[in-house]
Amino acid sequence: MPKPSKKPPLSLSNCPIARASEILGDRWTLLILRELFHGTTRFGEFVEILGIARNLLTDRLKRMEYAGLVMRFTLPDSPGRDGYRLTEKGEDTFPLIAGLMQWGNQWLARGDGAPVEMQSRRKSEPVGVAVLPESKTRAALTSNDIRLVAGPGAKRGTRARLDFIEERRNVGK
Amino acid sequence: MPKPSKKPPLSLSNCPIARASEILGDRWTLLILRELFHGTTRFGEFVEILGIARNLLTDRLKRMEYAGLVMRFTLPDSPGRDGYRLTEKGEDTFPLIAGLMQWGNQWLARGDGAPVEMQSRRKSEPVGVAVLPESKTRAALTSNDIRLVAGPGAKRGTRARLDFIEERRNVGK
Repeated sequence: MPKPSKKPPLSLSNCPIARASEILGDRWTLLILRELFHGTTRFGEFVEILGIARNLLTDRLKRMEYAGLVMRFTLPDSPGRDGYRLTEKGEDTFPLIAGLMQWGNQWLARGDGAPVEMQSRRKSEPVGVAVLPESKTRAALTSNDIRLVAGPGAKRGTRARLDFIEERRNVGK
Repeated sequence: MPKPSKKPPLSLSNCPIARASEILGDRWTLLILRELFHGTTRFGEFVEILGIARNLLTDRLKRMEYAGLVMRFTLPDSPGRDGYRLTEKGEDTFPLIAGLMQWGNQWLARGDGAPVEMQSRRKSEPVGVAVLPESKTRAALTSNDIRLVAGPGAKRGTRARLDFIEERRNVGK
């Protein structure tokens, strides 16, 4: 038996990391967020690109709507059908999704290196996620300031998807 | 039936976010990482502080060891018992764990505000996680450069836990 702690634990309900993990500590939720940042709005496209079962997608989108990460809107060309987009709270997960990409590229890339990389739109500079004193984070980039570009490990499918994401973004302007 | 896409999808196995989410898209894994950053090493302390079932903890630590996030070491004062600590790959998840705290504080804090905040050790400045051009991320802070401090929403248990974490860190020096 562990002896009773004299230090009362930091209760999970009072820890911001625990509260955030309850919403974001889920593989599908993170992948759906990725797609929302890529401009995906339609249920069918999430299914197709993620290969997620429709009932799981319905469940995750409901949870994400309840948590305030996504909102529905009427798809202009499909009356009666809703699309999904990020709320401000959802947009604010951008450093986390970008951080997953950075960590994945750094530690999980296979032979040829990173398949996808982030670049600033303004200067086409490589982009990173970092913990810094707040005085140095004022010029933080949002998802709109970033372009995804093919890295050395990109395959043909990756390039085609990146082109598609970029074209859709330009059409939406 | 969805019509076959002309744009081949970015395959999940070739996406760094998907690969990273497979390892990190799990609530318990994120909470165990939090505790490792807090200096927790012992199986029993993870159980106590997280309220996690022993079989789940065993499973998660095994997966994390297999993924290269944690390594075992012999606890100096408990021969025959292993403790756990972060590898470099594990340490490198710091922007993600810090990002969860930032997002949790920003969007999920209750009435009194953030329970825990991050400060730089050197200047006691508030600290943030941001996406920035790489030229601006050179001075990135690591977990060792950061102190956790009680925020306006801290309860007594939170303060006691933060004191404990800070004392342990100083003893370890």
